Amino acid sequence: MSLSPSFNLKIRLPSNCYKPASNLNTAFPKILSITNSQQYECPTFLYPPANQSVAAIVFGDGSHSQLYPLTKRRAEGALPISGNYRLIDAVISNCINSSITKIYALTQFNSTSLNSHLSRAYAGARLGKDGFVEVIAAYQSPEDHDWFQGTADAIRRCLWVLEEYPVMEFLVLPGYHLYKMDYQKLIEAHRNSKADITVSVLSSSRDEDLGFGIFKLNAQSQVIDYRENPMMDPLKSTSVKNSVKFNDDAHHNFPSMGICVVNKNIMRKLLMEHFPLANDLRSEVIPGAISLGMKICAHQFDGFWEDMRSIGAYYRANMESTRKTKNAYSFYDKDSPVYTLPRNLPPTLITDALITDSVIGNGCILSKCMIKGTVVGMRTIIGEGVVIEDSVIMGSDTYQTNNVQNGAGEEKDVCIPVGIGEGSHIRKAIIDKNARIGRNVMIINRDNVQDGNNEKNGFIISGGIVVILRSAVIPGGSII
Amino acid sequence: MSLSPSFNLKIRLPSNCYKPASNLNTAFPKILSITNSQQYECPTFLYPPANQSVAAIVFGDGSHSQLYPLTKRRAEGALPISGNYRLIDAVISNCINSSITKIYALTQFNSTSLNSHLSRAYAGARLGKDGFVEVIAAYQSPEDHDWFQGTADAIRRCLWVLEEYPVMEFLVLPGYHLYKMDYQKLIEAHRNSKADITVSVLSSSRDEDLGFGIFKLNAQSQVIDYRENPMMDPLKSTSVKNSVKFNDDAHHNFPSMGICVVNKNIMRKLLMEHFPLANDLRSEVIPGAISLGMKICAHQFDGFWEDMRSIGAYYRANMESTRKTKNAYSFYDKDSPVYTLPRNLPPTLITDALITDSVIGNGCILSKCMIKGTVVGMRTIIGEGVVIEDSVIMGSDTYQTNNVQNGAGEEKDVCIPVGIGEGSHIRKAIIDKNARIGRNVMIINRDNVQDGNNEKNGFIISGGIVVILRSAVIPGGSII
Amino acid sequence: MSLSPSFNLKIRLPSNCYKPASNLNTAFPKILSITNSQQYECPTFLYPPANQSVAAIVFGDGSHSQLYPLTKRRAEGALPISGNYRLIDAVISNCINSSITKIYALTQFNSTSLNSHLSRAYAGARLGKDGFVEVIAAYQSPEDHDWFQGTADAIRRCLWVLEEYPVMEFLVLPGYHLYKMDYQKLIEAHRNSKADITVSVLSSSRDEDLGFGIFKLNAQSQVIDYRENPMMDPLKSTSVKNSVKFNDDAHHNFPSMGICVVNKNIMRKLLMEHFPLANDLRSEVIPGAISLGMKICAHQFDGFWEDMRSIGAYYRANMESTRKTKNAYSFYDKDSPVYTLPRNLPPTLITDALITDSVIGNGCILSKCMIKGTVVGMRTIIGEGVVIEDSVIMGSDTYQTNNVQNGAGEEKDVCIPVGIGEGSHIRKAIIDKNARIGRNVMIINRDNVQDGNNEKNGFIISGGIVVILRSAVIPGGSII
Amino acid sequence: MSLSPSFNLKIRLPSNCYKPASNLNTAFPKILSITNSQQYECPTFLYPPANQSVAAIVFGDGSHSQLYPLTKRRAEGALPISGNYRLIDAVISNCINSSITKIYALTQFNSTSLNSHLSRAYAGARLGKDGFVEVIAAYQSPEDHDWFQGTADAIRRCLWVLEEYPVMEFLVLPGYHLYKMDYQKLIEAHRNSKADITVSVLSSSRDEDLGFGIFKLNAQSQVIDYRENPMMDPLKSTSVKNSVKFNDDAHHNFPSMGICVVNKNIMRKLLMEHFPLANDLRSEVIPGAISLGMKICAHQFDGFWEDMRSIGAYYRANMESTRKTKNAYSFYDKDSPVYTLPRNLPPTLITDALITDSVIGNGCILSKCMIKGTVVGMRTIIGEGVVIEDSVIMGSDTYQTNNVQNGAGEEKDVCIPVGIGEGSHIRKAIIDKNARIGRNVMIINRDNVQDGNNEKNGFIISGGIVVILRSAVIPGGSII
Repeated sequence: MSLSPSFNLKIRLPSNCYKPASNLNTAFPKILSITNSQQYECPTFLYPPANQSVAAIVFGDGSHSQLYPLTKRRAEGALPISGNYRLIDAVISNCINSSITKIYALTQFNSTSLNSHLSRAYAGARLGKDGFVEVIAAYQSPEDHDWFQGTADAIRRCLWVLEEYPVMEFLVLPGYHLYKMDYQKLIEAHRNSKADITVSVLSSSRDEDLGFGIFKLNAQSQVIDYRENPMMDPLKSTSVKNSVKFNDDAHHNFPSMGICVVNKNIMRKLLMEHFPLANDLRSEVIPGAISLGMKICAHQFDGFWEDMRSIGAYYRANMESTRKTKNAYSFYDKDSPVYTLPRNLPPTLITDALITDSVIGNGCILSKCMIKGTVVGMRTIIGEGVVIEDSVIMGSDTYQTNNVQNGAGEEKDVCIPVGIGEGSHIRKAIIDKNARIGRNVMIINRDNVQDGNNEKNGFIISGGIVVILRSAVIPGGSII
Repeated sequence: MSLSPSFNLKIRLPSNCYKPASNLNTAFPKILSITNSQQYECPTFLYPPANQSVAAIVFGDGSHSQLYPLTKRRAEGALPISGNYRLIDAVISNCINSSITKIYALTQFNSTSLNSHLSRAYAGARLGKDGFVEVIAAYQSPEDHDWFQGTADAIRRCLWVLEEYPVMEFLVLPGYHLYKMDYQKLIEAHRNSKADITVSVLSSSRDEDLGFGIFKLNAQSQVIDYRENPMMDPLKSTSVKNSVKFNDDAHHNFPSMGICVVNKNIMRKLLMEHFPLANDLRSEVIPGAISLGMKICAHQFDGFWEDMRSIGAYYRANMESTRKTKNAYSFYDKDSPVYTLPRNLPPTLITDALITDSVIGNGCILSKCMIKGTVVGMRTIIGEGVVIEDSVIMGSDTYQTNNVQNGAGEEKDVCIPVGIGEGSHIRKAIIDKNARIGRNVMIINRDNVQDGNNEKNGFIISGGIVVILRSAVIPGGSII
Repeated sequence: MSLSPSFNLKIRLPSNCYKPASNLNTAFPKILSITNSQQYECPTFLYPPANQSVAAIVFGDGSHSQLYPLTKRRAEGALPISGNYRLIDAVISNCINSSITKIYALTQFNSTSLNSHLSRAYAGARLGKDGFVEVIAAYQSPEDHDWFQGTADAIRRCLWVLEEYPVMEFLVLPGYHLYKMDYQKLIEAHRNSKADITVSVLSSSRDEDLGFGIFKLNAQSQVIDYRENPMMDPLKSTSVKNSVKFNDDAHHNFPSMGICVVNKNIMRKLLMEHFPLANDLRSEVIPGAISLGMKICAHQFDGFWEDMRSIGAYYRANMESTRKTKNAYSFYDKDSPVYTLPRNLPPTLITDALITDSVIGNGCILSKCMIKGTVVGMRTIIGEGVVIEDSVIMGSDTYQTNNVQNGAGEEKDVCIPVGIGEGSHIRKAIIDKNARIGRNVMIINRDNVQDGNNEKNGFIISGGIVVILRSAVIPGGSII
Repeated sequence: MSLSPSFNLKIRLPSNCYKPASNLNTAFPKILSITNSQQYECPTFLYPPANQSVAAIVFGDGSHSQLYPLTKRRAEGALPISGNYRLIDAVISNCINSSITKIYALTQFNSTSLNSHLSRAYAGARLGKDGFVEVIAAYQSPEDHDWFQGTADAIRRCLWVLEEYPVMEFLVLPGYHLYKMDYQKLIEAHRNSKADITVSVLSSSRDEDLGFGIFKLNAQSQVIDYRENPMMDPLKSTSVKNSVKFNDDAHHNFPSMGICVVNKNIMRKLLMEHFPLANDLRSEVIPGAISLGMKICAHQFDGFWEDMRSIGAYYRANMESTRKTKNAYSFYDKDSPVYTLPRNLPPTLITDALITDSVIGNGCILSKCMIKGTVVGMRTIIGEGVVIEDSVIMGSDTYQTNNVQNGAGEEKDVCIPVGIGEGSHIRKAIIDKNARIGRNVMIINRDNVQDGNNEKNGFIISGGIVVILRSAVIPGGSII
């Protein structure tokens, strides 16, 4: 079943969500261009193999916080996505499917969530001999008592760990984007071109800044300049997209994906010798490397790629996962499976439900209800007569027992169980984990608010989407 | 929501499926009687604790084969149940929830399926320090080249392994029944009564043989006699239920559940000294122990218990799991969770489905369809326009790729994908793993056959239930 | 074999290393007193059981740094001890052996080492159902961008995680002491006395401050006062031991072990209501609780306990493990095993060695050599003619391959392999991981230096003990 | 350090233990010949990669029993070797190091030992995504109630499992030989030659039958004939080595190693169509394939290879591991590590020992003793004054506690602890697991017996080597 036409009518695809272009600008050298569907069809095998020669450095969090309150207790990489997953699973799975099994995850913002997920989901298994996902939370040491000051600072301070295995290249990856890429193709291109650094760019030659700056390439796909929009606001990216234009041909400008391959010794030289005070890789070190005349190549990526810089983008990525579409991100592809924490849950028990365009996690109990265009996460309990439309229900961490008080301050509402109470109606909302929605609650953004904060009552509204906070209690009869 | 009244109308509960009796025979001493709901409410803590003093011996297969063809490639304990589980998970979970973590699983019939499941699901984890599930498949040794000749023979030949840890009691368990029991209560009763052996019996004082014989008890719940029906046919148990009646008061006769606690040194003496040639524990050793005058007590069990001796019983147990009932077996109980192999599957994607009284496993893809009273197992792919009623769909082991040939002999049908083809209609059927149902297939037992074998075309009919074989291919347009 | 008499002659036992007292002050109520050997002999079983009702909060690092350079890259809890272990394994093993399986490890100083060890050694296994060791590294959140400001601040900021499971008590534990304690006895005493808080104290009624202050008890073992020595210097604790004396009877003063049991709701009230600005549990919150009139009891501990506040103490604890002594910490006790990361190493290959009073880890290769009073860690390679006395050789993380450069800066010395070169002589030294000692090196503290720093040449001297730094290279022929 | 000259004097290398030949017969085509040291130096990368295209079928036991009593409770593959390993680890490690991660282990003789080891050592980890070691113990099914009748019968009956994954080739491996081979080189040769079957042969062109027959090759390394010695007795192989000579040039005859690569569809055709009644692969199916004119190539192996067909050979292989030799099997090679069950043992504590040419496992406690040319397995306790020479001490499964009775029948000897009692002297002996050697025992084969059975007293003698049985008790003062 193909992408439903009505989808395009209802939700205009935002500029930062790229679908594979059907007709690429043919003036541009296509040799490096790959499409999403090709990613794992004609596999690449590197020599020496990726699992022995490449180490991935994944950043679990970004520095911006447009995702609050979803990130109140979580790193961006720990955001639940499509019911069963955490966002960082997409990137870790790309690594595993690309045979890259030495993975360092660097975090400092709300790192607990990410540490817990990664160590349980990937510790001691799956990655084959010598493989690992090692979480490096920001730490104090005798030499340095500060937090990581940026990506470059973080890598510099961890070099002693990162250099433990004799790899050839570091692959630097943001851990909070949704896409599938065979990184082996990127590394193969890097090795073939004998570059010092290879960056990954979105192939559509638009000059929008996706938060990682814009590279200007020459005809040989070599980077000759870098710009970024200092006023870049991820929530309003469409309106500023022209502001970082280079003077020359637009089709030589490509938005960076924040991904780069750096030779191990080049990384050390850049961080320790050339730019020992630089904090940020993207805005300081890579422009510096350009100015030093290093060989920096670009590799175009032409598949589905979804950024998560705002609640709107996060909402759309979840919505996307509720539809069978050929070009979108697939969780069902045997050749490039998405890994996560294996769980031991019963199947979902459904008494009487009409369900359309939705994904339903394991362990739910659904009474008579209607669900449409919705992600229903693990262990969600849905009462009779509930109607849910175009929403993200994150689910619950455990099944509730009757006589337990989950922390102080909730005793008074303990009569409202975790889940969605009878007769409630939810539309275009995100219900965070362990929320307790009472009976006959209406979460429909009645007043059509675009943005508003009502945290003390357990919700905020962002871009017209109502977000019910983690463990919030919405009393019966409430109308939001 | 309570047991739907229509359920009782449609399917008459068979005699071997016991529900908690609401009014017990009050003439009988009730002190030992427990109900299902009490099982984990008032927990028992043994001293010395069960995880250090008890070893469970679980038998993964029985000797009868009324479950063929479901057991063509599987031990009975490896039968899929309620979508996500294998039957033996119920007993292993009982052990874990009863803090019994030294578990030996003895098998010889189609043991591969069970070995693979148990070693992946329980090896090296979950059972705490010193805990294990050790699979002992029948083996040849310099001393004995035969298969296990029965439960007693199997235990005798494995005593050298079973005695490795200094436990006090062995708990012998059939591994293919569905029930929840806190075995600690059974062991506590055993220790309190200072018995040599304690057997578990169903508390309703009926004199039906459930395949494990009938015990006659005195007023002190002590076993004074044992009988079994030599002609016992599990498929016709209702008609023969009177044949093993003892002469005296019927309410002193209790059906055995095949479960017993035996002191470690008593086990050794019975098997090595008193009855060194006995093959069967139930019919030879325990009656022998009675005749020797050993102290054998009975412990009554009054909860839900489902036997799986026939395809009908297997079908009913699955049907039971599709309904929210207070007294039935629950997979959703936080205090007595059911464990199984943790899996890493995407949530189920539903395009447009009306689902009633069903359980849906993870990783399914459901197009526009109607599902009623059905267990839908993992990774089931259901095409458009499909209608499924009162059936068990076991699901698939992997997602199919297009160009794979699953073994020889299937090349010709490779165009029919695994799953249920568009427009098909299935009613009162069991669809085994990896079956390929073509388009517009009708599996409705059109001719209302009670029993019939059509293995060469991929199905049999048993008790009016159509069973599609594992990996069978049903061509498009077929009517069964 | 008992404690060798010469041991007492050579190394005077420091004041912070307690051995079980043979004649306890009988004036003191002995009811709470336990000895080390009794710890696991008469086991305690709590109701509700510890694994469901207690959560341990382990601190992986202290705030002092007398262990530098051993802690240059490690938290104190990650210090290698006795060849195969990390220091924190002792406390985690105490928890497991006490059936406490919900364990939170809070860290911020060099947390990488500890995270990596704990997540690999304890993730997803051994701890039974619902058990876990969850590492919480200091993190930034929208509410708080600072590091943990102390133990109280750390617990306060993590309360939302720590309260996830409905436990009754928190057990607060420093993670860098060496001792065996059945915490169930401590919790049993706490429950029996109906205290708000129970602290653990060393039973010998000396008034030395071990870094956690001194409690003054009344005759009912209830805490009535707390003092700490503001000038407490762990390196010179013997000289200041009188400075914190209370005015009254000395035998009512007991040194705190830094361990306390706090009721869950008391913890919340103390941290959130009474002392919302307190940073430190020991010096602010517990004295505050005393002043509030809460019931605080003390539980005496009378076993072996070794602090690790200085390089000298660390050295002595390792030395202790090389001797068969009845009263010391045992790694060989079946009833209270010490857990760690399971490893897959070959046995140690010995060509010709005379070894006395030493422990030898797995995977070593020993040529003709003499080893006396020494801990030889995993994968240590020892050349011909080597003599090692009274030293700690930590060993190596991997076997070296010939053509690998372990990070920059070492290329020049790559000809010196990891291990101890031929003909070298080492006495009273600590050789940190992956060090490369050339041929005919003398590490004997020739000039009898007490304290000196020579980091640029790869070593320091502390208390007369030479410490060779991690990955240091000592050229052939050097004399230290 | 090279192979000590005295070694060759003391123990004549038997004919079935091949060392790399220094001067190969140059008349023979050398193109396929590889030496042991090259195995992992110039790695091979297959396309498609081995982990996706090859399944290994490992046989855990052979059909002969010259290893009794070592195999009384164990399959041959489960024999302890070099202290920390089981014999089958060598072959499984070869697979892992060759990137072959789909491994089926077929067993039926004493399979419990092997199942337990493999499922704990390799289940759920290390093998990367989609990797597994699946143990298939002989089983009964509705179709077949017999044991496996041979290797061909076993594969035929398990084809439904073995064909589950779409591999290209099956690699058939005996699981009880000690050698290192990069199987990828064998498979590469197989694919390059477009053979139906490729067998592995020892490169020295001798015509001895090693138990797997002799292949005659033509100049293109293609198999043109097969012979085996019907009277082949592994214990006397030297005396019969000429009996299977082909008539022609001896240097075209090569002994089979029992290893072969068979295309998946060829395997099915041979077993199901051409030779549906054949039981044995080696003696029936492969000769049959030759007669059918299939293309069967041979691949020469020129490294260390040790057979274990007799107690003498088993003894020698262990002795070999106690010496640092360049050409022998190495457990210390970083590039081809040997995997096994990871363990959590303390380091070995040595009071005063002179140790030469020995390997010492973890967790031992050695009092004043002399050990020479000996394998000392895990948890061995050695008393004061013990002298051990040229022996294999397998060690113990657990540390003994004082008050435990390990099974019936041992109570009387419970005063003799597990381990080697004070003052005992052991020479040229194999001490099986958990044996209890009393004080002042002499195991020196006093009467110079070559072969004798004294099982009732806990030992046998084979080829002059004394074998103390598993869990045997040798009373103090005994002289053997």
